[in-house]
Amino acid sequence: MAKLEVQGYRGTRDFYPEEFRKRDQIYSSLKATLKSFGYEEYAGPLVEPLELYASKSSEEIVSKQLYSFVDRGNRQIAIRPEMTPTLARMVAAKNASLVKPLRWFSIPQCMRYERPQRGRLREFDQLNVDIFGGNSVDEDIEVLQLVVKILDNLGATPNMYEVRINHRKILNELLYSHLKFSHNLQRELIREIDRRDKISKEEFELNLKNLGASENQIESLQCFFNSFETQTLPEFPEFQKAWKEVQLVLQVLKDLGISTVKFNPTIMRGFDYYTGLVFEVFDKHPQNNRAMFGGGRYDNLIEAFGSDSLSGIGFGAGDVPLIHFCESHGLLKDENKPLDVVVCRFSENDRTQSFVLAEILRAQQLNIENSVSDSKFGKQIQSAEKRGATCVAFRGEEEVQKNEFCVKFLKTGEQKNYLFSEVGALEFKKALKEF
Amino acid sequence: MAKLEVQGYRGTRDFYPEEFRKRDQIYSSLKATLKSFGYEEYAGPLVEPLELYASKSSEEIVSKQLYSFVDRGNRQIAIRPEMTPTLARMVAAKNASLVKPLRWFSIPQCMRYERPQRGRLREFDQLNVDIFGGNSVDEDIEVLQLVVKILDNLGATPNMYEVRINHRKILNELLYSHLKFSHNLQRELIREIDRRDKISKEEFELNLKNLGASENQIESLQCFFNSFETQTLPEFPEFQKAWKEVQLVLQVLKDLGISTVKFNPTIMRGFDYYTGLVFEVFDKHPQNNRAMFGGGRYDNLIEAFGSDSLSGIGFGAGDVPLIHFCESHGLLKDENKPLDVVVCRFSENDRTQSFVLAEILRAQQLNIENSVSDSKFGKQIQSAEKRGATCVAFRGEEEVQKNEFCVKFLKTGEQKNYLFSEVGALEFKKALKEF
Repeated sequence: MAKLEVQGYRGTRDFYPEEFRKRDQIYSSLKATLKSFGYEEYAGPLVEPLELYASKSSEEIVSKQLYSFVDRGNRQIAIRPEMTPTLARMVAAKNASLVKPLRWFSIPQCMRYERPQRGRLREFDQLNVDIFGGNSVDEDIEVLQLVVKILDNLGATPNMYEVRINHRKILNELLYSHLKFSHNLQRELIREIDRRDKISKEEFELNLKNLGASENQIESLQCFFNSFETQTLPEFPEFQKAWKEVQLVLQVLKDLGISTVKFNPTIMRGFDYYTGLVFEVFDKHPQNNRAMFGGGRYDNLIEAFGSDSLSGIGFGAGDVPLIHFCESHGLLKDENKPLDVVVCRFSENDRTQSFVLAEILRAQQLNIENSVSDSKFGKQIQSAEKRGATCVAFRGEEEVQKNEFCVKFLKTGEQKNYLFSEVGALEFKKALKEF
Repeated sequence: MAKLEVQGYRGTRDFYPEEFRKRDQIYSSLKATLKSFGYEEYAGPLVEPLELYASKSSEEIVSKQLYSFVDRGNRQIAIRPEMTPTLARMVAAKNASLVKPLRWFSIPQCMRYERPQRGRLREFDQLNVDIFGGNSVDEDIEVLQLVVKILDNLGATPNMYEVRINHRKILNELLYSHLKFSHNLQRELIREIDRRDKISKEEFELNLKNLGASENQIESLQCFFNSFETQTLPEFPEFQKAWKEVQLVLQVLKDLGISTVKFNPTIMRGFDYYTGLVFEVFDKHPQNNRAMFGGGRYDNLIEAFGSDSLSGIGFGAGDVPLIHFCESHGLLKDENKPLDVVVCRFSENDRTQSFVLAEILRAQQLNIENSVSDSKFGKQIQSAEKRGATCVAFRGEEEVQKNEFCVKFLKTGEQKNYLFSEVGALEFKKALKEF
């Protein structure tokens, strides 16, 4: 038989314990922050009927990135490329009985068929956070505050990132009511405006011209993007309303001492379903320097299920750019395996007493490895050092006679004996804490 | 457009927050126990190349249960039906640099195409625990001790379950060396012995007869199963060695005060790859009364990758029977959402100060919801009760004047004012802890 490959499927990752601990550090922080805001965790299936994504996901995902296939019972299903369709299905199923506002989060494993590159893989975890059914301005403020808090609690400082916000209605009113662009150009316009900050002024204007924009339209648009703060803004009521909402959100955030959220009229967030505030979190590290994640407000989460419309705001943050962010900015503590003691033994004859010793120490809520090895004592100690243990514990002839156990602290070489009992274990635990 | 179904794919589950908390309670306990024995968490891809499973999984899984398909690049892949093949691949990839013994665990989401029924779904999580590269008897003892500890820490008592152990070599020697059964009958014999405890004596003996067993063979086998403890056992060295190993394992467990592990010669654990100790954990609840999970010792984890053989022992425990076990025996605490305070407000004008109040309280590591609602004050309090909060906090005119905030404990109706500052928040936290 041919040898099997040790390499996994392209665009996936193996998390060895060391890598796992890194990601777990991040997830623990995320979860604690979310819970401190009253968000609750939920989970859903790895696969859904294909029609759910066909109806709720973007056309790009469905036609190019979906892992879809036919099951053994001839049902069309797909591995989830994102969580929102499942969220919508779950909320629609129990909408009437769920007390609003809902604050929910999940960290599902997802898959998209993409070209693997820095910050983008085929398989990834995606933190999904949503609040819906409450007062929209308050929800908008809370989600932005939460985003900042998540990054703060990961150890980020304001120079490391920026949250850029915009409002779909501001752009819509400007483009279609004020500048009279054709609605047919929506997709193309969103794409070009989204790219504006990444290309030259000339290229941006040429692209718009190629879409059929007049010089007047282009000039007005540029003028708005460049100096919206000082300009006389269009008088359309919808525009003014959205503009005031954005100002209010920014004011409350300022009052909360948050300085990293800024208005930026070119933030588009491609997806069609956003209807109000949209935002993107930028990683300012020169190695990354790109949108880390983002989200926005939507109105029609569960309409496709025949339910009333339900408005909310949410975001999805992939683990890949999040890990890059934390690594690039040096936010990850180099945490070792949490191992307090390795219990060693002199020979196989000590088997039972070493198992018992391990058990007595474990009862003190300590993490204990039993060396389960008959190699030489010195080797067992070396191995305990490699494994990152704080100390080794054992019972030689002398200790057995005195009904004690001996502990050797690996860093200092210090040795101390304790009673071989709960009392002794407790005393040792205190010494360990002070160590 | 047709209405979308709110029902997910057959054999999968939606974990609403309440359900999620239940499972999370179980997982937190599992993880803490595993870490207390020095086990480290790892994770791997949702999909693997088909050939990995074709080579490492059982024939039944591959031919009948695998969710396999062709990706957009024409690669044959499959959703993981179990974790062991990924574990083997990961260990083989870095075998030389991994310090033995390895103690690893993972809780992957898996899929198998099966007929959904009680205790069995198409999508499930499976706790995988393995230790390898150490002294085999010690590893066997540790894993059995760990299994018992996992159940103990979930709140189980010895009357709720039994761990049944056997040794592959005992049966192999008995069947082929002693009773001279043909090796060709291996599969069928394993299946029949596995079923022995579930069917009548007559049916068992008839089944063996139909396989071509002589009366003598059948009688000897029955005699061994019924009275192995008092019998003169075969003198074959391999048999005697395995028999002594089992006795030793049971003796040390007894010395550790463990009474729930018993020898049972009919435990087979279908899979071919087990080579030594095998075990099954039985749920004794009348509603379940079946094998909850099991595992065993294997020798050839990474040989298929062209590596040296690596021996270890491990088990896989699905979340579905584990949850049933905990539910049937009443082990799940009815944990509410951990919510300390809902911050209420009298009107939209109080927006900023309620956001600030929430933030001050959150800084005390409390879980705080901001009501983000402009409904009447009484309604906000009712809603806070429904959400399971311990108290509500707010600032009326009086509190603002005195630079304070007011807390109302929902159970007693008691109200108390605190300084609107870190000092006040700290004082409140103390009161909350004592409440």
